[in-house]
Amino acid sequence: MGTREGWQLPATEALRVGPDTDVDGLDTTATPGFVGGKSVGERLLEERGAVLSDLQEKLFANARARDEQRSVLLVLQGMDTAGKGGVVRHVIGHVDPQGVDHASFGVPTPEEKRHHYLWRIRKALPRKGQLGVFDRSHYEDVLVVRVHDLVPRSEWEARYDEINAFEHELVESGTTLVKVAMFVSPDEQKARLAERLERRDKHWKYNPGDITEREFWPQYKEAYQAMLDRTSTPHAPWHVVPADRKWYSRLAVTELLIGALQRLDLDWPAANFDVEAEKRRLAGS
Amino acid sequence: MGTREGWQLPATEALRVGPDTDVDGLDTTATPGFVGGKSVGERLLEERGAVLSDLQEKLFANARARDEQRSVLLVLQGMDTAGKGGVVRHVIGHVDPQGVDHASFGVPTPEEKRHHYLWRIRKALPRKGQLGVFDRSHYEDVLVVRVHDLVPRSEWEARYDEINAFEHELVESGTTLVKVAMFVSPDEQKARLAERLERRDKHWKYNPGDITEREFWPQYKEAYQAMLDRTSTPHAPWHVVPADRKWYSRLAVTELLIGALQRLDLDWPAANFDVEAEKRRLAGS
Repeated sequence: MGTREGWQLPATEALRVGPDTDVDGLDTTATPGFVGGKSVGERLLEERGAVLSDLQEKLFANARARDEQRSVLLVLQGMDTAGKGGVVRHVIGHVDPQGVDHASFGVPTPEEKRHHYLWRIRKALPRKGQLGVFDRSHYEDVLVVRVHDLVPRSEWEARYDEINAFEHELVESGTTLVKVAMFVSPDEQKARLAERLERRDKHWKYNPGDITEREFWPQYKEAYQAMLDRTSTPHAPWHVVPADRKWYSRLAVTELLIGALQRLDLDWPAANFDVEAEKRRLAGS
Repeated sequence: MGTREGWQLPATEALRVGPDTDVDGLDTTATPGFVGGKSVGERLLEERGAVLSDLQEKLFANARARDEQRSVLLVLQGMDTAGKGGVVRHVIGHVDPQGVDHASFGVPTPEEKRHHYLWRIRKALPRKGQLGVFDRSHYEDVLVVRVHDLVPRSEWEARYDEINAFEHELVESGTTLVKVAMFVSPDEQKARLAERLERRDKHWKYNPGDITEREFWPQYKEAYQAMLDRTSTPHAPWHVVPADRKWYSRLAVTELLIGALQRLDLDWPAANFDVEAEKRRLAGS
């Protein structure tokens, strides 16, 4: 590894949505902020995964020992095969399972459909001290719902503001949101779907509906653009992660989470007992 | 590693509770069924962790693709510092977080106290296809509750049969139970508590009440013996894991889980679509 390899810019700066973010013109093979290839990236992922794990433990410790209310919630959005599941396994997999609250959101169940679209989301929010992970989220309700007009336009139009208000409430109550939109190219998606069809151990991940959705790629791009434009707020910004290179997207999400946890500026909680007195009690026990 | 090192007997056989299981006479430094030291054990843990992860993915895949109702639930019991948390991190940590349903059970909350003791347990049962983990469990209600007579004797006495009936119901509905009781010696516990007092990053794990509980060691041994004698059933047997050597207890639990998953005899679910037709559709998309 040469001295010039690695992050040239913090991931959070390199990936944060700005006024110029353009889903249509995005290079999904790029590695924003990072100079270096796959082998450097994969080695770094292991090192930084351990850092992430330590930071999460501090968050957990503060909730346990001092009733700190803070939590971190990773929101993952992306088309099929964008690599959301791989992020869960290879990034979140570094963290103690005890400290992770994972939820995934598919097609709403009949019960979920009877409720407001945020009902199932609120039920799955991370507990204090936890690293929450949403594999898909309330943003489905302005993505697939918008693309297929599953509710009237006036209804999904109102959701952008509603989501911003909801997330503001979350942030106010101590949850740091890390919102990540992962983008693959249509060709890369095709290759990943082909792999699922080739391998017997991947058939279960394949859904014929995935091909149908490919026809709506332009509409999805539009919906993603609107989502980024309208729900990337100062309190809960979006990050755009090019995802054709799995090693990069995993490393990038790791860095985004590390950045969020570091900004909480956590220390190990001080003992709420007399350490020396307890040592004497223990010795005599 | 010599050819004689490794498991001489399947962990499930070496550790399963039998009529002769004697908590009082247990050698907590032993490594039943296993010949070899720490370095062999730690290397094996990594290898077998990957096997565990693959098996869990098959369980998950069958639930997703074929609506299979099966799940596996690891029930961990043990005195403070026995290493339950370490098993979660270092054994369950090998499995995709998406496939894990983790729950820990501390002192019941006021709401939990208003309900039957199995209420909070039922709410936390693993979903189909998941590997559930209970860090403590309904067995607290015949352990700490018995030792301190938190309910009248007639009440906790009735729970053994009740728990057996409850677990039978779970097994009948597709959940394989892997029940593990971890045992450390009083001296090893003392050393581990001392470490928590020595290290600033471990203070949050220390609770002055832990020392108080040490005075009840004989009563806890009695309660554990009764638990093993009365709730180790053919459908949900207990395993006794000596836990003074962390590398051994982690490896042993890994093997117990692998054994349970292998006995489910899972294969990758067959495609519920025409693979060749889908390849053609994909190529044309």
